[in-house]
Amino acid sequence: MKYYAPLLEQLIEHFERFPGIGRKTAQRMAFFVLNQPEDKVKSFADCLVSAKSEIHRCSECCNLTDGEKCSICGDPSRDRSLICVVEEPKDVVALEAVGEYRGLYHVLHGSISPLEGVGPDDLTVKELLARVGEGTEVIMATNPDVEGDATALYLSRLLRPLGAKVTRIAYGIPVGGELEFADGETIARAIEGRREI
Amino acid sequence: MKYYAPLLEQLIEHFERFPGIGRKTAQRMAFFVLNQPEDKVKSFADCLVSAKSEIHRCSECCNLTDGEKCSICGDPSRDRSLICVVEEPKDVVALEAVGEYRGLYHVLHGSISPLEGVGPDDLTVKELLARVGEGTEVIMATNPDVEGDATALYLSRLLRPLGAKVTRIAYGIPVGGELEFADGETIARAIEGRREI
Repeated sequence: MKYYAPLLEQLIEHFERFPGIGRKTAQRMAFFVLNQPEDKVKSFADCLVSAKSEIHRCSECCNLTDGEKCSICGDPSRDRSLICVVEEPKDVVALEAVGEYRGLYHVLHGSISPLEGVGPDDLTVKELLARVGEGTEVIMATNPDVEGDATALYLSRLLRPLGAKVTRIAYGIPVGGELEFADGETIARAIEGRREI
Repeated sequence: MKYYAPLLEQLIEHFERFPGIGRKTAQRMAFFVLNQPEDKVKSFADCLVSAKSEIHRCSECCNLTDGEKCSICGDPSRDRSLICVVEEPKDVVALEAVGEYRGLYHVLHGSISPLEGVGPDDLTVKELLARVGEGTEVIMATNPDVEGDATALYLSRLLRPLGAKVTRIAYGIPVGGELEFADGETIARAIEGRREI
């Protein structure tokens, strides 16, 4: 069903390549581009190219940044003895939005998943080991799924010999949630992680 | 909740401006861009700019094209005495996909909608009138909603004095559909459009 002008068809196909974007949405996006003023389209195109060329990993925590270090690693008020390990940059955003945590981060850019062919060498494990020393507390905040748990376990085995204290964030019933609606796995984790009151 | 590097935040915001794209999807799209090879991103950016600058309306039917005329208007095998009037370029694609129709098109780029401030001057009405002469059949294929009906009626009043035959595509129960599930308006249209068998 390709009856658009070749250049328009090309533009639609570019949008279709994005994850979760189907043909209809891609068409809508392409028409939106054509209805925008020329300078807006130009600035979008420039932003794409410069984001791709200038955004790279922070030399310390591997989060995405356009400077040499990210703003968190560059912040002298942060507690440098605490490193929170997350899978993706968006996890840093989720944690920062709360504003509770005052330590540093380490972004793995994925989790160990033999099924998807992702091993430790595909993640920023080496960079993490280089940052950790005697007395560092490393908080594992990988996702509570098979891959995230395996990654946390794998890393803790590498980190403990370096003298680091390795902890895992607590998983359980969400605050405001009801026991009745929690899934079995969550309830099991909540019981496993129980504390004396 | 803006804790991404400024350039990344900017990229996300560009994607958020598209219709139907929320924050989460915009983030996913931005990360997808960063994970693409540099030449792919460059070619996407180039496609955006060249589509915007080179795609314009066909001088005859006002459909979007990157040539002087669109491929349909430039096709000598098409019946030039038939003009099918549609609201949007995607309607041409829908009709062409069927492969039944052998006439030309005219794309209005919208429909008359006083509520949204769209009047005849915002559409390609003048261009349509210039194409129509004695003996032309103009098929109104605007959408079967208030705006589409009003537009078809408005145009038919302008076209008839020019000697054109004006028709409206049939609306009724879709083929393969069941009467039981059709809405009242569709059933009313189906009865109104009944034919002797």
